[in-house]
Amino acid sequence: MDRVKTGTIGLDEMMHGGLLPQTATIVEGAPGTGKTTLGMQFIHHGIVHENEPGIILTFEQFPAQYYRDAANFGWDFRKLEEEGKLRIMMSSPEVSRAYLEEAGGQIEEIAREMGARRIVVDSLSQFERLAEDPLELRQTIYSFMNGLKREGLTAIFTWESMTLLGGVEQHKTTIPFVADTYILLRYVEMESAMHKALLVLKMRGSDHDKDIRQFTITSQGIQVQSRFEGREGIMSGSPHQMTDSFMRAFVKR
Amino acid sequence: MDRVKTGTIGLDEMMHGGLLPQTATIVEGAPGTGKTTLGMQFIHHGIVHENEPGIILTFEQFPAQYYRDAANFGWDFRKLEEEGKLRIMMSSPEVSRAYLEEAGGQIEEIAREMGARRIVVDSLSQFERLAEDPLELRQTIYSFMNGLKREGLTAIFTWESMTLLGGVEQHKTTIPFVADTYILLRYVEMESAMHKALLVLKMRGSDHDKDIRQFTITSQGIQVQSRFEGREGIMSGSPHQMTDSFMRAFVKR
Amino acid sequence: MDRVKTGTIGLDEMMHGGLLPQTATIVEGAPGTGKTTLGMQFIHHGIVHENEPGIILTFEQFPAQYYRDAANFGWDFRKLEEEGKLRIMMSSPEVSRAYLEEAGGQIEEIAREMGARRIVVDSLSQFERLAEDPLELRQTIYSFMNGLKREGLTAIFTWESMTLLGGVEQHKTTIPFVADTYILLRYVEMESAMHKALLVLKMRGSDHDKDIRQFTITSQGIQVQSRFEGREGIMSGSPHQMTDSFMRAFVKR
Amino acid sequence: MDRVKTGTIGLDEMMHGGLLPQTATIVEGAPGTGKTTLGMQFIHHGIVHENEPGIILTFEQFPAQYYRDAANFGWDFRKLEEEGKLRIMMSSPEVSRAYLEEAGGQIEEIAREMGARRIVVDSLSQFERLAEDPLELRQTIYSFMNGLKREGLTAIFTWESMTLLGGVEQHKTTIPFVADTYILLRYVEMESAMHKALLVLKMRGSDHDKDIRQFTITSQGIQVQSRFEGREGIMSGSPHQMTDSFMRAFVKR
Amino acid sequence: MDRVKTGTIGLDEMMHGGLLPQTATIVEGAPGTGKTTLGMQFIHHGIVHENEPGIILTFEQFPAQYYRDAANFGWDFRKLEEEGKLRIMMSSPEVSRAYLEEAGGQIEEIAREMGARRIVVDSLSQFERLAEDPLELRQTIYSFMNGLKREGLTAIFTWESMTLLGGVEQHKTTIPFVADTYILLRYVEMESAMHKALLVLKMRGSDHDKDIRQFTITSQGIQVQSRFEGREGIMSGSPHQMTDSFMRAFVKR
Amino acid sequence: MDRVKTGTIGLDEMMHGGLLPQTATIVEGAPGTGKTTLGMQFIHHGIVHENEPGIILTFEQFPAQYYRDAANFGWDFRKLEEEGKLRIMMSSPEVSRAYLEEAGGQIEEIAREMGARRIVVDSLSQFERLAEDPLELRQTIYSFMNGLKREGLTAIFTWESMTLLGGVEQHKTTIPFVADTYILLRYVEMESAMHKALLVLKMRGSDHDKDIRQFTITSQGIQVQSRFEGREGIMSGSPHQMTDSFMRAFVKR
Repeated sequence: MDRVKTGTIGLDEMMHGGLLPQTATIVEGAPGTGKTTLGMQFIHHGIVHENEPGIILTFEQFPAQYYRDAANFGWDFRKLEEEGKLRIMMSSPEVSRAYLEEAGGQIEEIAREMGARRIVVDSLSQFERLAEDPLELRQTIYSFMNGLKREGLTAIFTWESMTLLGGVEQHKTTIPFVADTYILLRYVEMESAMHKALLVLKMRGSDHDKDIRQFTITSQGIQVQSRFEGREGIMSGSPHQMTDSFMRAFVKR
Repeated sequence: MDRVKTGTIGLDEMMHGGLLPQTATIVEGAPGTGKTTLGMQFIHHGIVHENEPGIILTFEQFPAQYYRDAANFGWDFRKLEEEGKLRIMMSSPEVSRAYLEEAGGQIEEIAREMGARRIVVDSLSQFERLAEDPLELRQTIYSFMNGLKREGLTAIFTWESMTLLGGVEQHKTTIPFVADTYILLRYVEMESAMHKALLVLKMRGSDHDKDIRQFTITSQGIQVQSRFEGREGIMSGSPHQMTDSFMRAFVKR
Repeated sequence: MDRVKTGTIGLDEMMHGGLLPQTATIVEGAPGTGKTTLGMQFIHHGIVHENEPGIILTFEQFPAQYYRDAANFGWDFRKLEEEGKLRIMMSSPEVSRAYLEEAGGQIEEIAREMGARRIVVDSLSQFERLAEDPLELRQTIYSFMNGLKREGLTAIFTWESMTLLGGVEQHKTTIPFVADTYILLRYVEMESAMHKALLVLKMRGSDHDKDIRQFTITSQGIQVQSRFEGREGIMSGSPHQMTDSFMRAFVKR
Repeated sequence: MDRVKTGTIGLDEMMHGGLLPQTATIVEGAPGTGKTTLGMQFIHHGIVHENEPGIILTFEQFPAQYYRDAANFGWDFRKLEEEGKLRIMMSSPEVSRAYLEEAGGQIEEIAREMGARRIVVDSLSQFERLAEDPLELRQTIYSFMNGLKREGLTAIFTWESMTLLGGVEQHKTTIPFVADTYILLRYVEMESAMHKALLVLKMRGSDHDKDIRQFTITSQGIQVQSRFEGREGIMSGSPHQMTDSFMRAFVKR
Repeated sequence: MDRVKTGTIGLDEMMHGGLLPQTATIVEGAPGTGKTTLGMQFIHHGIVHENEPGIILTFEQFPAQYYRDAANFGWDFRKLEEEGKLRIMMSSPEVSRAYLEEAGGQIEEIAREMGARRIVVDSLSQFERLAEDPLELRQTIYSFMNGLKREGLTAIFTWESMTLLGGVEQHKTTIPFVADTYILLRYVEMESAMHKALLVLKMRGSDHDKDIRQFTITSQGIQVQSRFEGREGIMSGSPHQMTDSFMRAFVKR
Repeated sequence: MDRVKTGTIGLDEMMHGGLLPQTATIVEGAPGTGKTTLGMQFIHHGIVHENEPGIILTFEQFPAQYYRDAANFGWDFRKLEEEGKLRIMMSSPEVSRAYLEEAGGQIEEIAREMGARRIVVDSLSQFERLAEDPLELRQTIYSFMNGLKREGLTAIFTWESMTLLGGVEQHKTTIPFVADTYILLRYVEMESAMHKALLVLKMRGSDHDKDIRQFTITSQGIQVQSRFEGREGIMSGSPHQMTDSFMRAFVKR
């Protein structure tokens, strides 16, 4: 099956080639972990290397912010938008529900017009507060995701988490159950510095790498590296060294 | 007593041959742990190897999604449905309560018509939100389970848990008390990767294996493997190496 | 003082002969820990070995379920009921409060008629939701317990706990304060398997064994074994090996 | 200053002779830790060894229960009550507030009549639910305590805690601030058994022993023993051995 | 700058001479940690050694209680009050809000009349419940503190904490932000006994000692001692020995 | 790109030269960690070394308090204000919302008039309580931040945290997502003393140092130092020594 490359070095490899086409992916992380960067990289890569136009749907940030942020990685979003390959759609939270309800409406129209194949929704968290009943919310989001898939779009939804450092993550919503792919970005404290970890927890319809990998945000975007060596409890955000290595040191003597 | 084989390698062994006929099983897990896969495997195995037609009752996912997901394991659900051996019934959450109340209604009719012996309800979590009073909800679910049993069905209910990584699981509902069998699927972090663990916590009317076993999702479905060696605190999701092995290393010198 | 033997091997020993007559015991545990089995064994032992007829009062499960479950241990509850030595009384949760209020009513009558000496109430948890005011609930339960005692009955109340694995148990209700005896059943993870632990936390009017003991459910019912060796933190559900043994290993060299 | 001996071996020593006269003491503990036993011992010791008549004010248990419980320790409460040296006053929770409000009423009268010097209120927990506003409740209890003191009574209030095993105890009420003395009874798991610990946390107007001591309930009542040796984290309920002893073992070699 | 000596040995040193004049200090601690003693010592020292009259404003305890408590340390508060150097003002919680609102009212008058320079408010916790809106409460307290400062008073506010033993202290109110100085008193379990720790967390306008120091309550009042040696996690209330010393022991061999 | 130097030694280095112009920064910390000091230093440095006038917008503290606090570091805020280079604007919480809504109003006017380039908002926490709906609040704050940026201002918002010591920080609001830069100040217990740690968690549009660094408040303001050596779990507030160093000690022998 064809894969939709995210363009994030290492991540496509972890997903055995990339995302499955016409699926919905949730990328969850705390502030500064790089969710939006991953999304922008996905859109930029699609346009520039795969000839797949893309949409960024935002409920808070102005297009200008995306232009500026993208420019840091050498991505000229303004130009791409002028060329009709990118469209940054902004909506205030007040009208976002309407967007959802008439999903087949404006977004559909624009997607068809520009031949969009990818979309980033930044962020799913703003949806979260639109319905009081969690079941109703879940249905709305599920319908919205299905609407995007029907349009032939492969979608990334960013999701904000305020768990700065590990611990037991016990979500109140069950939204990740409706996504096809679920990627976690986490902070990890090691040697008196904050590192970043990436994990593909779930990928419907495909095998995937289960490693917890380090990643950095470079001037070329996100780069996923090797997994953490000799540490236990990484997902807690504050791993400790494994007694394993301790043992080995003794036994080898 | 005859056993209802789940077809999941290793799991039937853990349950001393399989599930007991006409019992209700809860399979609980976080997103991506393989609950639905286990359920589909149970249905597929029944139809293909035991000549037992089956029903999948879904409150969210479209039949097409099950067709796609099953195809990944080489299971042709569309064909089985056409042959009348499988029936994927979909219900929106709004009418699900009605389904429950007239349990003897549509489901009963279909089950008899096709001679169904197995059913997967995907998922129990959607029931959870239908009643505000936990006692009333428990009664409704208990009645529903009993209704299925009376029809001669052996049932698997998937149950969504958002506890991504261990910790103290303190459920607010007491639904697992009404199930005959209670199976937990959990994520376990080891060596900078996410592994999966399976545990049969409760099995009414039969002895069972109490091991916490590793399992993987392969192209043939779920495969349960051996238990974890030399680790303490597996159910916490972040086990550490046992000092035992540490000691042994020293003492043996 | 005479003791009321539970028939559970090891447990009577821990309680210096058995329960005190005309007392109320709470047996608390997670799903699958064996609360109901302990209760059935108590009733069966009374009838068969002590010639003491018994009642099982249930608010959810049908008598047929008890027949089936008892049969697994070779106990013929149907026959005992036909002989008038056992009575399984079922009540829907709706009428359970009425049962409580007219405690001296139907239960009293039946108990006298059949000369019952033992009763199992399965489960106390269903009472828990009948009153919103915890003080009122506590009073109702206390009165109910006293009513049973006045009838000369020795009572076991099962109590459902959803704490699957240890941690700090901080109950919201204070019901255990009104019971004479308080027995805890807990899961304990050791060597990648789930073990079961039993503890007599409180026994009014008698000394008792304070050990935390392992137990298993065999084809003869519950069998309490020796205590856990060389482990700390058993009640946390995830014990670790004691450094003690570690030390000893070193010092002995 | 004269001390009011509790008669509990070891505890009086810890309090440099006993309680201060006309003070209010809170004894807090989980079910089965011995709060009521400590209170009964305090009353019995007063009557028999100090010639100080005493009152037990109960909001739940019948006098007969105290007779039975006391008899286990060889204390004949029925006889003491007949001799006018003991008075067990019972109140249903409904009228307890009235008792409080007219504190100077019935209790005062009885106390004067029999020349009572000691009182046990079993338990303070039932007060806790009588007022919704915590500040109002605190005032009511404070007034009640002051009323008892004015009558020349030295008072022990039992207080129920459902924290079975340590952890961070974060009370919602601030009642212990109004007590003169605050004693904690706790369960401690050691070597696969449940031990009991006693701690005098606060004693207004007197120095006191700060040790965390083991205690047992014997046929003579509560006996406080030496402190725990070589353990850290006792108040957590699940102490571990100190690395200290570990070190010493090594260094001594 | 001149300092306002608290008279507590060691604490003045930690604050580089004492409190800054006309500042508000919060002293927080669990029951029995010595908050009120620290406050009384501050008032007594001011009157006797610095010739600074003082006020104790109480919302619960009667003056007689302060007389008794002070007498334990050899401080004759009754006499000081007769000499016009001390004033113990009592207010019921009901009128406390009024006190706050007309801060410039009665307290101001008394302070001027007697030339008071110091005040202890015992306790701030009672304020906490007077307003439902935390922002409104904070404003009220801030205004009250400023009112006292304008009168030339240096103020200590006691604050009750029910966290008996460490753990993560996550206050719901943000009151400590409005105080100039914030002192924590904590229980620390070490060698099976409860020790006390003192920490100056914040001191606006002055450098201060950041050590976590042990302290005891002697017959002369509070005495702050040296810091804890070779322990980690003191603020958790249950420190463990540092592996540091462990290492040193090994390496030195 | 030009950088806006904070003047805090070490911090500018960590941010590769300083803040980005016209961005909003959140500085979060517990009481006494130095948030306001960092803000004042930012304003003072701007005026004195960069010739950039600044505004301090306060919702609680009086200007006099800033004068006093600044004087401790030798910064003459009164004089700077007289020279028109500094403006301390005070608002009661009641009118703060109005300030927000007409952001372009008074603040804009003053900023233009004095040519302000920097602003400190002390504190964001007071905003937090102005709207019940978190989404509405977030929008208001985001608009306010954008308003300041449009005026050419580089802004620091202090944010109060009551987490005195580490643990899992799970914010209820998601405000840090709208900030460009997010700096955490934390207490860290080491060797029986409280140290302070600083961390730049997020910096939009720029690479930055990910180290967790120690810092102290000296008579010259905040000074950021090197990172912590040989400790794990610093962000928990109670780090432990790494077994790493332990190992090294052994292996080297």
